[in-house]
Order: sequence, then structure tokens, then C-alpha cells
Amino acid sequence: MAKAEISIAVVAPANRLAEEAAAKVTAIARSCYGDRLNLYFHPQCFLSSGHFAGTDAQRSAAFLEAANDPAFSAVWFARGGYGSPRLEDAVFGKLNRAAHTKDYLGYSDLGAILGRLSREGVGRSVHGPMPTDIDREGGEAAVRRALAWLVDKDADAVEPSWRVNQRVFAFNLTVLSHLLAGPAEPDFTDAILMIEDIDEPHYRIDRAFAHLMSSQNVRRLRGVRLGRFSRIPPNDPPFEFNVREIAEYWCARARVAFLGEADIGHDAANKVVPFPKLSLVTA
Amino acid sequence: MAKAEISIAVVAPANRLAEEAAAKVTAIARSCYGDRLNLYFHPQCFLSSGHFAGTDAQRSAAFLEAANDPAFSAVWFARGGYGSPRLEDAVFGKLNRAAHTKDYLGYSDLGAILGRLSREGVGRSVHGPMPTDIDREGGEAAVRRALAWLVDKDADAVEPSWRVNQRVFAFNLTVLSHLLAGPAEPDFTDAILMIEDIDEPHYRIDRAFAHLMSSQNVRRLRGVRLGRFSRIPPNDPPFEFNVREIAEYWCARARVAFLGEADIGHDAANKVVPFPKLSLVTA
Repeated sequence: MAKAEISIAVVAPANRLAEEAAAKVTAIARSCYGDRLNLYFHPQCFLSSGHFAGTDAQRSAAFLEAANDPAFSAVWFARGGYGSPRLEDAVFGKLNRAAHTKDYLGYSDLGAILGRLSREGVGRSVHGPMPTDIDREGGEAAVRRALAWLVDKDADAVEPSWRVNQRVFAFNLTVLSHLLAGPAEPDFTDAILMIEDIDEPHYRIDRAFAHLMSSQNVRRLRGVRLGRFSRIPPNDPPFEFNVREIAEYWCARARVAFLGEADIGHDAANKVVPFPKLSLVTA
Repeated sequence: MAKAEISIAVVAPANRLAEEAAAKVTAIARSCYGDRLNLYFHPQCFLSSGHFAGTDAQRSAAFLEAANDPAFSAVWFARGGYGSPRLEDAVFGKLNRAAHTKDYLGYSDLGAILGRLSREGVGRSVHGPMPTDIDREGGEAAVRRALAWLVDKDADAVEPSWRVNQRVFAFNLTVLSHLLAGPAEPDFTDAILMIEDIDEPHYRIDRAFAHLMSSQNVRRLRGVRLGRFSRIPPNDPPFEFNVREIAEYWCARARVAFLGEADIGHDAANKVVPFPKLSLVTA
């Protein structure tokens, strides 16, 4: 086999990836890029430790190994769920020069890693589809889009309102709410924030927006864009505002501009949102 | 009727109180205290606006009216749910001298108000049972306990590890997670924090602890005590740690002492936890 132009490592800091999903994604990568791309699924992806894809130590070690290996140009996170906040803190102090030149692609629970890497100026964090998305309806498009960005930086993969001269972040709302005040909270000054969520009833969406907009850091945003909020369970009693009304209400209350919609969400249409390469943190 | 020794106002910043619950609590108050106590249920408690006990403006106005009325020695919050974070910010700038001499009793969603009043040095915030607890199994004991503290400052109502010379806070874990970085986050320096929750699966409990313990303010705690975590829904896949293990893990990681259990929770046994009278906020 000819030496691949690009090698990408897949690791799973949160939940376990199904081996069948990895096989499907491998087949797509091969059909799209042939020998140009070496897509490496780290064996840790398939470990199981209760809720997680292996123990905290195993997940931390696999992430560190992939990030620090100069053979890989990107780390692609396999799947969300929950687990990223449990990575060992020491990992982030051990990231080497190679780790600082990589792209890191994922979303949902992985926001805890994307935010921290971005804040610490390590490589480039990118919000976008993961291998596990292959199991969604139409999921092949999501996987092709992620690969198109990772391999060729294909502009068509990028969320259409994204601009190269604008600092843009994207997060799952509930995950971001859990990052405020901690080491993974980015500096939002003059930035655009895109927000999406899944499986949360309206009162929780409202509560998370209330939280977000109570932060002085978040209030320094240039504006907020609303991604898709999917599979919203019934609110008991019924909530009087829809998600758009909730977002507009809290943006107005915090005097942050509401800029309309963003083409992101827990679905196959989820577009790629590269974070700023270096986020300067204010004191 | 003789003039009552003590008047207490009940308002509902979150969900609506059932009129039957108010009637039952009124009967208990009468049987325990007769003419000594005037327990006033503000009509706002029974308003309904979708999810909430009236609109944001109605709930804000009723809270402000009760807090600012010198005839009342305490404001007792009727019921949790969700709504306290939606009170108008301006309310907290309008609290008068009478508001600064009152006790404010409630828990769960009301943590958003208790935390803010405590941080701003307004009166005394107290974590404990609410009128709606009358509808729990054994709920009459919870209501009697709350009244015993409000009317007579009965020491038997207070959580047994509470000490007068120790700064102690109590919160619902999920609610407190939503207060970090905002105006209702207390200064936790050298304080004891008691935590309880309900209806959250293990992965969310773990995630909220991860969030809490990521905060430098929270890491200045003297220690954490674990209240009851009730009605935990199944975690899919099963989580490998129980709540005590989760709490001990995150306390150890943040180098905060784990001090054992606290006698608080979403149940009839929920004890009273008075906050410090003035919480000095560090910069």
C-alpha cells in the first residue's frame, strides 16, 4: 500500500463505538479517498467499562497517544454520550508539539475537550459530525462531510454563516452550561456562539439559557445563532415558549444579539464549525 | 382575632401551588400556633401561566411585595419546579430595609433566589421544606418542621451537622450547577456545602459534580456533605459508580474534603439549613 497522504486517529473519550459503525465508516473513507487516507480506529474505541469506552485511565491514555503522535494530522472523536469531563486533568499538561498542530473534531459531550483545547491554544477544535453518526438516518452524508473537512478542508462542509475573520464557537447547550466557570470555558469576547441540543424538555432548555446568559463572559458575545433542538420530550405542564422564543428572550435580557439560525444539530445535516485557532483568555 | 405575633407570606416564584395544599398547610398552622401565626398565601400562588404560577411580571411583583412588606417576618416559597431564574433582575435592586431583615425559606429551584439573596446580603436564606411538601408521604412533618423554624427558630428543625459558627449552604445539585458564574453563586470559601437531587440519572449526577468541582470558587469549600438523591432513573448503559462514589471521586479530584451525609433531600425528612447571614463575595 502506498504511503497515505493523511492519517487520522479515532478515539472515544466518552461512550463506546460499535465495531460495525467503524467498519462502515472505514468503507466510506476507502471509497472516497482510497490510499490517500489512513483512518485509524484506536482499539480503545471498542473497550467497554460500564457507561464508558474503557476506564478513565484508558480513555485518557488513548487520547494522549493519538494527540501526541506526529503521524496523525487530526484526532476524530468517535462518539458522544458522557465521559469527556472525566479525562485526567494531567493529560492536558502532557500535550506535545505534535498535539498543537492537529485538528480535533467532534461535538456534544466532546465540547468539554474542544473548549479546553481551544482555551489552552492547543491545535484547532472543530465542532462537527463523528463516526457514530453513520447510524443516523442519512448518516453517510455526515461522515462524508466530516472527512471532506478533515482531508481537504472542503469549504462546503462548513456551516454557511461561518466566516474566516470571525471567532465562532459551537456547543451543545447543556454541555456548555456545564463548562461555565471551569477550565474548558472559552473566552467568548466578540465571538459568535452556535447552540444546539437534544432530548431536553423546554423548561431545561430555558434554564440552561438562563444560566448561559447569566455569565459575564457569555454576555461579551457578539451574537448567538440557534442550531436545531431535537427530540424535545413533553414539558409537564406545557411550556408557553418555543425554543426560538426562549433563545430570543434570554439574548434580549443579556443584551446579546440574536442572529438567527445555525445549521448544526444532533442529525445528519450537522455542519462543521471550526473554532478560532487560538482563544486568548481574559483574566 | 388577636393580633398575630408573627406573619409569614407565601409566594410562588416557580410553579403553581394547589389550593388544596394551601388549605391543608393553613389548617396545620392553625392547629399548631392558633392566633400566634398569621400565614398569608399570596393570591399569586394560585395563578397559572403555562408552566408557571403566573407570568414573570406577576411572580416578580408578588415576591417583591412580600419581601418589602414590614408586616411579614419571613417569605416562604410555595413550591419548586422551574421559574426562579426568570424573576426580573430589577427586583433585586428594589429590595428595601424590611426585605433585609427577613428569612427566606425554600429549596430546589428556589436555590436561584436563596443564592442571590445570600450573595447580596439580603436577609437570611434558608434551605428547607415548602408548603407543597404537604402532598408528599409524611409531608405534614415537613410542614411542621418548616413552621417550627420560621415561628420559633426550633433547633430540632435544623440539619444535625449544622453549626452556628460554620458557614453552611445547601442546594439542589442541578440547580447549583446552573448558578455557577452568575449573580446567584455564593462565595464558598471555607464553607460546608450540602447537596441533594431528584430525578437525575447517574451520568447527569456525575456531570454536574464534574462541573461543580471544576470551579475555583467551589474548590475553596471546607467540605461537601451528601444529601439524598432520590428517584434516580435507570442509566443506559448502567453506570459503574453510585452517588456516594461519584461524590467522593469528584471531591478527591478537587481536593475538597468529603464529610459524609447530610439530612436533606426531596422528601418529608428534609431538614432546615440556614445559610450564613452575610456572604462576603470575593472578587
